[in-house]
Amino acid sequence: MPEPATTVAPAIADADFSAWMTAIAERTERALDQVLPAPGTHPATLHEAMRYAVLGGGKRVRPLLVHAAGALVQADPAVLDLAGCAVELVHAYSLVHDDMPCMDDDALRRGKPTVHVAYGEANAMLVGDALQALAFEALARAAGAGAQAPAVVAMTLELARAAGSVGMAGGQAIDLASVGVALDRTALEDMHRRKTGAMLRASVRLGALAGRPLSAGQTAALDTYAAAVGLAFQVVDDVLDVESDSATLGKTAGKDEQHNKPTYVSLLGLPGARALAAELLAEATSALASFGAPAGRLRGLAELIVLRKA
Amino acid sequence: MPEPATTVAPAIADADFSAWMTAIAERTERALDQVLPAPGTHPATLHEAMRYAVLGGGKRVRPLLVHAAGALVQADPAVLDLAGCAVELVHAYSLVHDDMPCMDDDALRRGKPTVHVAYGEANAMLVGDALQALAFEALARAAGAGAQAPAVVAMTLELARAAGSVGMAGGQAIDLASVGVALDRTALEDMHRRKTGAMLRASVRLGALAGRPLSAGQTAALDTYAAAVGLAFQVVDDVLDVESDSATLGKTAGKDEQHNKPTYVSLLGLPGARALAAELLAEATSALASFGAPAGRLRGLAELIVLRKA
Repeated sequence: MPEPATTVAPAIADADFSAWMTAIAERTERALDQVLPAPGTHPATLHEAMRYAVLGGGKRVRPLLVHAAGALVQADPAVLDLAGCAVELVHAYSLVHDDMPCMDDDALRRGKPTVHVAYGEANAMLVGDALQALAFEALARAAGAGAQAPAVVAMTLELARAAGSVGMAGGQAIDLASVGVALDRTALEDMHRRKTGAMLRASVRLGALAGRPLSAGQTAALDTYAAAVGLAFQVVDDVLDVESDSATLGKTAGKDEQHNKPTYVSLLGLPGARALAAELLAEATSALASFGAPAGRLRGLAELIVLRKA
Repeated sequence: MPEPATTVAPAIADADFSAWMTAIAERTERALDQVLPAPGTHPATLHEAMRYAVLGGGKRVRPLLVHAAGALVQADPAVLDLAGCAVELVHAYSLVHDDMPCMDDDALRRGKPTVHVAYGEANAMLVGDALQALAFEALARAAGAGAQAPAVVAMTLELARAAGSVGMAGGQAIDLASVGVALDRTALEDMHRRKTGAMLRASVRLGALAGRPLSAGQTAALDTYAAAVGLAFQVVDDVLDVESDSATLGKTAGKDEQHNKPTYVSLLGLPGARALAAELLAEATSALASFGAPAGRLRGLAELIVLRKA
């Protein structure tokens, strides 16, 4: 009888997994540096601000998911680099816009002044706009790096939907409208499935689309994994927002309560939110069972997302 | 000896051309209505604001260029509809963001309150962000409407570059940095080739990429046409900003002078700017010579852009 998944040693304690994460983060940084126009490219201030927003920070969770899912389908690493850039550029643009005064009005991000603080509001708007365009450019360039054109089109469709009004941007709109409103758990989950979940799910999907086709059952299993991980990410974010100080978090802590925003902690309490995160980790892990050992990195990333401290 | 192009009767005086324009504007409106999430789709306010920003207004110059160029290469009209939606959605998103307080701070657009006036700044930001994503979604859907996947990838690359930091968004950044600065003609032209020209050129290129391949010479000729038309569009915009009142223009007139922005009128004077527009029209028209009669609609659009009154 096989051991239940929960007693398996965590992948994040594994030296190989840790080395793999470092390697992917490093190659993602290099790929982003290549995809972004070189410093000094006209208009220089815009490009400097774009590089400021993207390079040298972030956990690169989304590119890690792209590479981990891509490894399941033997995808070309050069294609995964570009897909990883695409999801990270969408994520970076959303942070720049989200931090602006008309949205969350945040002065600190990844321990640095936010883009509008450093470069002004108008530039911050344009940085976000240009980074979103660059995301789709990076993805389109995957065709020149060995991806089949139909796969690139499928990935583009996936990214556009995840980023758009029924995905991430829609989740932001619901979030804005929910300040001071008593959302129930269903409404809170709907918001987070869009706001954070859609792009995490898209990261897994893009990786999976980059290689040999999966069966319908395998695709559904990966989706279950991605949905659980996406929601867990937000639950843990809410927990950390309450538990951490700004220095550990690299952004302003306690801002949800300050903005009177509904969170999993306000809804379930701190122990309830922690228990939900653990439950979602178990769900994500068990969805990977049929893939066996090759899904070890996806399992490790789920653990990383739930057990992280910042 | 053939008559010089300038003595040919203007295509815009032609009843067929006028009927064609009306038909394309109508089918573009229908296509946009289909591509935008239906009214009431969750989150409803965001989708209402997106529809407000896109539908029922605008000259649809960019979709007209897509269809006119697409007709040269016998492209599928259903594919051109989606490519036309893509360029129009990028244009619409740029207007929403450009009108915001941190940019041009404009209260009136197409005779209606701007999106941030009607829906608030945060929603306006998200409307623009979501419309850009929807543009790439529409283009990716062209593969399901009969376009070849490699052509869709090439169109996506073209659109992303034209919209991004070396295209439209870059032009906006240069524009912002040039308030109160004495740009010379080269710098002003560089700004406009990016800010307005890049997306007009992309409209022509997307239409041309949607059908049978062109020779290198034909592609270069179309590019010459598109570059001249793109610049002429801005020169005429500058002239109209001085000549028109806000009611005719459907937006705040005289705002360039008010914002102390360099324009073709401030650089060349009103007669000089008018002469430049006429010169660019002749250049655009002569670039089409080798295509013969099938390029009549592109010629008509160049005339429309230069001879328009609003």
